[in-house]
Amino acid sequence: MVVKVYGPAFASPKRVLICLVEKEIEFETVPVDIIKGEHKDPEYLKLQPFGVVPVIQDGDYTLYESRAIIRYYAEKYKSQGTDLLGKTIEERGTVEQWLEVEAQNYHPPLYNLVLHVLFSAKMGFPADAKVIEESEKNLGKVLDIYEERLSKSKYLAGDFFSLADLSHIPFTNYLGAMGKMYLIKEREHVSAWWDDISSRPSWKKVLELYPAPILE
Amino acid sequence: MVVKVYGPAFASPKRVLICLVEKEIEFETVPVDIIKGEHKDPEYLKLQPFGVVPVIQDGDYTLYESRAIIRYYAEKYKSQGTDLLGKTIEERGTVEQWLEVEAQNYHPPLYNLVLHVLFSAKMGFPADAKVIEESEKNLGKVLDIYEERLSKSKYLAGDFFSLADLSHIPFTNYLGAMGKMYLIKEREHVSAWWDDISSRPSWKKVLELYPAPILE
Repeated sequence: MVVKVYGPAFASPKRVLICLVEKEIEFETVPVDIIKGEHKDPEYLKLQPFGVVPVIQDGDYTLYESRAIIRYYAEKYKSQGTDLLGKTIEERGTVEQWLEVEAQNYHPPLYNLVLHVLFSAKMGFPADAKVIEESEKNLGKVLDIYEERLSKSKYLAGDFFSLADLSHIPFTNYLGAMGKMYLIKEREHVSAWWDDISSRPSWKKVLELYPAPILE
Repeated sequence: MVVKVYGPAFASPKRVLICLVEKEIEFETVPVDIIKGEHKDPEYLKLQPFGVVPVIQDGDYTLYESRAIIRYYAEKYKSQGTDLLGKTIEERGTVEQWLEVEAQNYHPPLYNLVLHVLFSAKMGFPADAKVIEESEKNLGKVLDIYEERLSKSKYLAGDFFSLADLSHIPFTNYLGAMGKMYLIKEREHVSAWWDDISSRPSWKKVLELYPAPILE
């Protein structure tokens, strides 16, 4: 059964795509044009009632929320492809901790930056300079804590690449298009970590297949 | 080994406490006074570098982020106490989906309400009427989707109580203190669900042991 992934052009669905490539799982994609509002179409809302991407269909199983989907496939195919959950329950706990840090601490300021710097014009609302300034400041504070953590272990959850690292890739990549990659580069260990995880063949393949819409 | 939980008076640590009670795991608690700023003390920051509660210590294992901690204990003691993850990998996937919905869709507007309605005066910043109005409106929209979901299954992830339901309890309980429990009560299936999950002995025990600071 081939997994069907909705919305591959966008960053959250790309979490799922990287995971599927790492786990060597076959997939096909269904475009969802958010700029045109296709994520609010009644047919789409039957699959994803909150009207956001991604959602996957795998036979008669439907699942949404990118971080839930990557956990599902990492567990279902634990011994196929790259192990993304750690070897022990304690390692998995630490993977979960950093997945939550990504979702709760790292993502919100980065998302606000992406929204206001890159997408506001296309989506028809004014960029808010105060939001941009505060988001960058908050993301910097989070990255200072990452710098400390990554001075002690190669990856966030330990010495192995995991869902926690993977989950950071698609949105962090937007820092380049925003001219703000210095937030990464000016921190030695964060920079080495980013070079490592962003050069994985899985991410290169996903970017090649589905360029970000902003770069088109 | 007794699990040590920091910050039991507050809502996020209460997720952990409900889980430990459901899983029949012994614990002790360490108060952290957020109003006094103890979560920013250097000693505390060594345990939780982002300066938020909770964090747990279990022997020499330290873990933070409430939703990571509850996943860890639900998995580590899968067959002890209440099963909170579902029986199959697909059920667990759906639990993960609704845990993420709680974290990404439900929690942000509810948290803003709690912050501005209940805590702003104690924490020394002005309540923002616009934030309150928009947060309530957004929470209502999310609850409309919950109403549809809960008309089809007793709990969020299916016909079993899971981490997804549990994760909603502590912050939703604040709606009472805010005089906004009508958001729940005016929706038939959401209301039945709330009556069910909030009357679990685990939650009653946690509330009895550690009353919310706002109610003191």
